[in-house]
Amino acid sequence: MRKNNLNRLFKPKHIAFIGGKDAEVAICEANRIGYEGKIWPVNPRRSQIYGHPCFVNVRDLPEAPDAVFLAIPARAAVDTIKALAEMGAGGAVCYSAGFKEAGELGLSLEKELADVAKDMAVVGPNCYGVINYLNKTALWPFAHGGRSIGYGAAIITQSGMLSSDITMTQRSVPITHMVSCGNQSILHVEDFIEYFLEQPEVKVIGVHIEGLIDVRRFAEVAIIAATRGIPVVALKTGSSVIGSSLTVSHTGSLSGSDNLYDALFSRCGVIRAYSPASFLETLKFLSIAGPPKGSRVAGFTCSGGGATMMADYGEKIGLNFPAFKETHMERLKSILPLIATVSNPLDYTTPIWGNAEKTEPVFSAAINGIKADVAILIQDYPAIGLDESKHYYLADANAFIKTVKRAGIPGAVCCIFSENMDEHTKSHLISNKLAPMQGLNEALDALKASIHWYSRHAKILLDKPLPLEPIRPLGKPIVLNEAKSKTLLKNCGLPIQRFIISPESTLIEAAGDLNYPLALKMMGPKLLHKTEAGAVALGIMDPDRLISACRVMKESVLSFSAASLTDTFLLEEMAENPIAELLIDIRYDEQFGSVLTLASGGVLVELIGDSITILMPATKTEIIEALAKLRVFKLFEGFRGQKPVNLNILVDFIANIVRVFETIDPKIIEIELNPVFVYTDSVLVIDALITQSSK
Amino acid sequence: MRKNNLNRLFKPKHIAFIGGKDAEVAICEANRIGYEGKIWPVNPRRSQIYGHPCFVNVRDLPEAPDAVFLAIPARAAVDTIKALAEMGAGGAVCYSAGFKEAGELGLSLEKELADVAKDMAVVGPNCYGVINYLNKTALWPFAHGGRSIGYGAAIITQSGMLSSDITMTQRSVPITHMVSCGNQSILHVEDFIEYFLEQPEVKVIGVHIEGLIDVRRFAEVAIIAATRGIPVVALKTGSSVIGSSLTVSHTGSLSGSDNLYDALFSRCGVIRAYSPASFLETLKFLSIAGPPKGSRVAGFTCSGGGATMMADYGEKIGLNFPAFKETHMERLKSILPLIATVSNPLDYTTPIWGNAEKTEPVFSAAINGIKADVAILIQDYPAIGLDESKHYYLADANAFIKTVKRAGIPGAVCCIFSENMDEHTKSHLISNKLAPMQGLNEALDALKASIHWYSRHAKILLDKPLPLEPIRPLGKPIVLNEAKSKTLLKNCGLPIQRFIISPESTLIEAAGDLNYPLALKMMGPKLLHKTEAGAVALGIMDPDRLISACRVMKESVLSFSAASLTDTFLLEEMAENPIAELLIDIRYDEQFGSVLTLASGGVLVELIGDSITILMPATKTEIIEALAKLRVFKLFEGFRGQKPVNLNILVDFIANIVRVFETIDPKIIEIELNPVFVYTDSVLVIDALITQSSK
Repeated sequence: MRKNNLNRLFKPKHIAFIGGKDAEVAICEANRIGYEGKIWPVNPRRSQIYGHPCFVNVRDLPEAPDAVFLAIPARAAVDTIKALAEMGAGGAVCYSAGFKEAGELGLSLEKELADVAKDMAVVGPNCYGVINYLNKTALWPFAHGGRSIGYGAAIITQSGMLSSDITMTQRSVPITHMVSCGNQSILHVEDFIEYFLEQPEVKVIGVHIEGLIDVRRFAEVAIIAATRGIPVVALKTGSSVIGSSLTVSHTGSLSGSDNLYDALFSRCGVIRAYSPASFLETLKFLSIAGPPKGSRVAGFTCSGGGATMMADYGEKIGLNFPAFKETHMERLKSILPLIATVSNPLDYTTPIWGNAEKTEPVFSAAINGIKADVAILIQDYPAIGLDESKHYYLADANAFIKTVKRAGIPGAVCCIFSENMDEHTKSHLISNKLAPMQGLNEALDALKASIHWYSRHAKILLDKPLPLEPIRPLGKPIVLNEAKSKTLLKNCGLPIQRFIISPESTLIEAAGDLNYPLALKMMGPKLLHKTEAGAVALGIMDPDRLISACRVMKESVLSFSAASLTDTFLLEEMAENPIAELLIDIRYDEQFGSVLTLASGGVLVELIGDSITILMPATKTEIIEALAKLRVFKLFEGFRGQKPVNLNILVDFIANIVRVFETIDPKIIEIELNPVFVYTDSVLVIDALITQSSK
Repeated sequence: MRKNNLNRLFKPKHIAFIGGKDAEVAICEANRIGYEGKIWPVNPRRSQIYGHPCFVNVRDLPEAPDAVFLAIPARAAVDTIKALAEMGAGGAVCYSAGFKEAGELGLSLEKELADVAKDMAVVGPNCYGVINYLNKTALWPFAHGGRSIGYGAAIITQSGMLSSDITMTQRSVPITHMVSCGNQSILHVEDFIEYFLEQPEVKVIGVHIEGLIDVRRFAEVAIIAATRGIPVVALKTGSSVIGSSLTVSHTGSLSGSDNLYDALFSRCGVIRAYSPASFLETLKFLSIAGPPKGSRVAGFTCSGGGATMMADYGEKIGLNFPAFKETHMERLKSILPLIATVSNPLDYTTPIWGNAEKTEPVFSAAINGIKADVAILIQDYPAIGLDESKHYYLADANAFIKTVKRAGIPGAVCCIFSENMDEHTKSHLISNKLAPMQGLNEALDALKASIHWYSRHAKILLDKPLPLEPIRPLGKPIVLNEAKSKTLLKNCGLPIQRFIISPESTLIEAAGDLNYPLALKMMGPKLLHKTEAGAVALGIMDPDRLISACRVMKESVLSFSAASLTDTFLLEEMAENPIAELLIDIRYDEQFGSVLTLASGGVLVELIGDSITILMPATKTEIIEALAKLRVFKLFEGFRGQKPVNLNILVDFIANIVRVFETIDPKIIEIELNPVFVYTDSVLVIDALITQSSK
C-alpha cells in the first residue's frame, strides 16, 4: 500500500501545496520543471497562488491528492498529515522542520507523525523533498537545476543543501530522481532504493548517507540491487570525530563507525565514493557508459604530461593499464609518429593530433591489442571563444567513439581540469553513450570503482551473501579479567596457553606443574592495562626469579595505584616465538549486529593500524579473503623463506571463535583475543578479554 | 648577461617570429593578448603575415630582437640561434622539436644548440614558450586563455599541453607568467624561479616537475624563495613505474625516486600538490589570500552536510578546527538559532541564512573566539538563470568579507562542487582579497599546505638549511658480505654484536670465546638472501646443537643452490629482545647526493613500509624530526608503560654512521644496517651490508 502511495508521490496527477511563502516557491519550482498535473494550493489567508485558487483546508480538496507539499509548522503538519491519511492521500513531502532534530518535544511530534501517517508515503520531515525529472514533477522548496535524458541516476541524500548543490552542478550527470530524505521518520533510504529498483530508467542509484537507521534492511536492498545489475554508489559522510557528532545533531541519524560502513558496503557490493565530485562522476560514468566487464583499461592522450598523470594516479589506486605485447607494440610503432613512446597509457603525440585517419587505427590497435574492457581518452577542450582548434579535438573524439563502439566496451572522454569541456561536446559524447568525465582523478576513481563493482556484483550473483543477523539492544558492558576469560574459552576447547591461577603463597608449588620459563601476571578488576601498571613479568627462568618477580610486581603495582593491588596471580608457560601475532575480535554492535575484526596483533595494533572488519554471518572463504587484506598476511604466505601458515587451521580457529561467541552465552557481547600466536600448523591464544552485557 | 636576456625575453620591445604556419599562429596569439611592441615575421617564402612584412633572414632584421619565436626544423633552428646569438638577440622560444627527445641525432643537435646559444636566454627546445600576462606578451604557438589582475602566480611546466590546459581553466587563478620549459637545454626550471623571485608582482610560483636536471640548484633557489616569503608549489608527476618511464621519453628528464623528491621539497619548504586541481587551487589561495600565520581554522557553512564533509576531510588531512571554549560557546548559542549545533566547523543554519545582520556577529564571534588564523565559508552558488536567491548568498559572503578583513586574516569562500561559483561572485571576492576556492577537498588541501608552508618558511628563515652536497658519478655497485661489512664498521667503533668468523672445523673452539645462545650464518658472495637459503640459525644453546645446526645449514644451502655453499661461518651472540628494530641506510644518489633513510626494521620493512628519507647534510634536530615521523617512534616514547628510549644516544649513533659513511672511504656508496636493535640506553647493529662503487 505504501509502495503504491510512493509511486503516486513520484507520479502525481495532482499536488496539494500547503503553506505560505515556501509553498509558493514550491509551486514556482513545479512550474519550472514543467509539471502538467493539477496544482492545488491550500492556504486559508490567500485567495490564489500563481493563478491557482487556494483551498482553505485539505478537506475542501476535490479529491485525495496524489502528492502533498507541506510547509507549515510541525504541530499543524502532524494534524494535516492525519487528515490527509484519512482522506486517502498518496504521499507527502514534509518540508517542515522542528521535529527530532529540535529536541524532546520535536521527537514526540515526530513519533506522532509516523503514527498518524498510516500508509501514506511521507518524506522527511526536515527535508527538501523529491524531484522526478522523468515525468517533470517537483515537490521542492528551492530553485533547482538538473536535467534528464530519459535515463540515468536516481539520487537520495540526507542533506537538503547537498541535494540542491548537486542539481546546480554543470557536470551533465543525467538525473532521473532527486530525493532529500531528511529525518527518515516514515520513508527510509531503503524504501527509495527499493522503489528506484523498479524503475527501468534508473541505471544507477546514488546515496548520500550520514547514518543508516536500519542497516540490515539496507544490506537487503543493496544486495537485491547488485543481483539486478543496478550499482549503488554511496557517499558516506560523518567519518571524523566532529563530523559524526554533527551528523547526529543534523538529522539525528546514528553515524556508526566508519569501518563498519566499509564492511557493510564491501559485503553488499556498494561502491563507496570518497568525495562529492567522485560521487557524481561515478554516477555519470555508470549511467552513460555502464560498468566494464573486466579490469583492462586502455588510456589515451595527446600529451606526455597527461599520460604520466594518468599512469601515476592509476597506479596509486590500482587501475590496470596492461602493457602491450611485442606484436601489438610493433603494430603501434608502425602507425605512430617516430617520437611516440608506445606504452599504456599512450601519448599518441601531436603530429597526428586531430587527424582521425591516423588516430583511429591507433585507438583500434591499442584497444584490440590489450583486449581492453574499457577505454579512456584525455582531452582538455579549449575555452569558449578560444576554440578555433576545437575541430581537432572533436576529430580525435569521434575516432575514439567509433573505435569504442566497434569494440563494444564502455568508454569515457575526460578533461584533466573539471571545467575544460564545453556543453556541446558533452552532449555529443552522451548521445554516443560515452561518458564525458570531468577531472582526471575523479574519472579514474569512477573507472576503478565501476570495475570493482562488476566483479563484486558477479560474485554476489553466484554466492548470495546471507542476511545480517537481527540486532538486539545491549546493557552496560562488564569486562571479565584475563583469568576468567581464559578459563571460559579453555572450557570451550580453544587452544589457550597453559596457565594456573594462584595466590602469592602457593606460586612456587603451582609453578611445579608448568615448564619454565614462565610468565607471571597479576589479576584484578582495576588491572585492565597490566603492562602499564608493571603487572606482567616475562621469561622467568626458575623459582628464585619467580619470587623476586612477584615482589617487584607488587611494588610496581602499588606505586601505580594502591587500589589495583590483588593477591591473584596468573602463571603461564612462555610460548615460542610465532610466525605472526594476530588480534581477533568478535563483538556485538547494536546497529550492525555481530562484527569480526582481524588485525596485526601485539604492539602492531596501535603502531600500524593494520585491521579489517567484516560483518556476520561470514563463510570461511570470506574470512580468508579478509585475512588476505591484512599486511601481516605476507608472513602467512612464507615470508623470507619461512614455512607458510596452514590457512585452514587458522581459519577453522577463527570460525570456531565465532561459533563460541554465538553459542556460549547470549550475555557475552565481545571476545577479544590479542595476541593470538600463529604458527605453521597451530594457533595459541596468549591473552583474552571477554565482555558481558549487564542484561 | 643571460639574466638580462631573460628579462628582454619576458619584456620584449620586438619579437621575431620565425617559421610558417606555427609562427603565424604565434603572431595571432601575440595579438590576442594585446602585445604592443614590434612584430617581425621571418619567412623567405611569404611577403607578409597579418600585415607585418616578412624578412627573408634574421640578418635582415632592423636590430637584434629582444625575443624570438622559433618554429623551424631542428637543424635550421640551431643555425638560426647561432646567428641570433652573434647579432646580440635577447631570448628565444625554441618551439621546434626533434632534439633530445628524438634519439641520438637529436641529442647531438641539442648539445650544439646549447653551445651556439652563448648568453642567449633560450627556452626549450620542444616547448610551448612563455606568456607574460603582466605586460601582455606571448610567445606561444596555440590559443591561450588566462588573465592577470596585476599580481598572482607565475607557473612553470614541463608539459606544454598541461600549460595550455591550465590557461583554459575557469578558476580565476591570477596568472602573471606561464612558462612551458620543454627540454631545459639552456634555461632550467631554476632559472625561471630565480627570475620570478625578482618580479614584485609574483606572489607565488607554481612548478610542474617531471624531473629536475640540477637538484642542488633547485634546492638553492627554493630556499631563497622561502627566505623571501614567496611560496613555491610543486606538482611532481612521474611517480609511477609507467609514469616515470614516460617522463624520461617525454622530455628526457630524470624523474628520480618519488620519496627523494618528497625529501627535497620538505627540506626546502616547497609545497607539494597531489593533483592538477589542488595545484591550481593552492596557487590561487596563496596569490589572493596569502598564507595564514598559524594553524587555527574557522569553518562556516549553512548546511549540516557541508559542515560534516568539511570536518571529515579536514580531519583526514590534519587540518586544525579548534573547538570553542565555554564562553564563546555561550556567546554563539545566544546569537544562533536554537536548532544550530555550536561546533567548528559551524553550520549557522537556514533561519539566519542571507541575513547579514545575524550572520556577521556569528562569523565574528567564532573567528575571535578561537583566534582563527584563517577562515573559510562554504557556499555553492546557484547556476546562472536559476539564481533568484543569489542575493542571500552574497549577503552572507559580504558579512564574511567584513569579518575576515576586520580580523586581518586570510579568508576563502569555497564551493563544494568546483563549478558552483559564477564569475561575478569570484571577481567580487578577489577584489576583496578573498580567495574563491573551487572544490571542497582541493580548498582544504590548499589551506593545509599554506599553513604548513608558513611554519616551514619561518623555520628556514631562522635556521637556513645547508646546501646539498655536490654530486659525483658512480661506478658499478659491489656488495661486501656481512662479515666484511661488520668488520669494517667495528673498526670504526660502531656497536656491532660480538661475532667471530670461522671455518666449520674450528667452530666449537671459536664459540668458546662467545656466550651461548649463539647465531650461526654462512657467508658467501652468492648468499645475499641468507634466510631464504636457510643459511641462518638462531638461538643455538650449546656446542652439540651448534654442530647439528651447521650440518642442517649445509644441507639446506646445498639444496637451495650448490654454488652458494662455502666454508666460512659467522658466529655471533644472540642479542636481547630490543624495544624496537630500525633500518638505517645511508647511500649516495647520483642526482640527490647523500641520502639517509630511516625505517621500521626487521620484517616490518617489507610489511608496513614505514620509512622516511632525508637529504644530507642534516643536523641532529633534523634527524630527530625524521625519526618522529616513523610509526615505530611510538615505541621510543615509552609505549605501554615501557621505558622511553634515550633519543640522544640513538641520534648520536645515526650521526656517527653518517660521519663514517662520509669519511671512511670515498668508494663506499651505501651502508645499510638492518636491523639495528634499539634499547633504552644503547644501540646494537645486528646485520650490516656495505656497497662499494667500482670506481
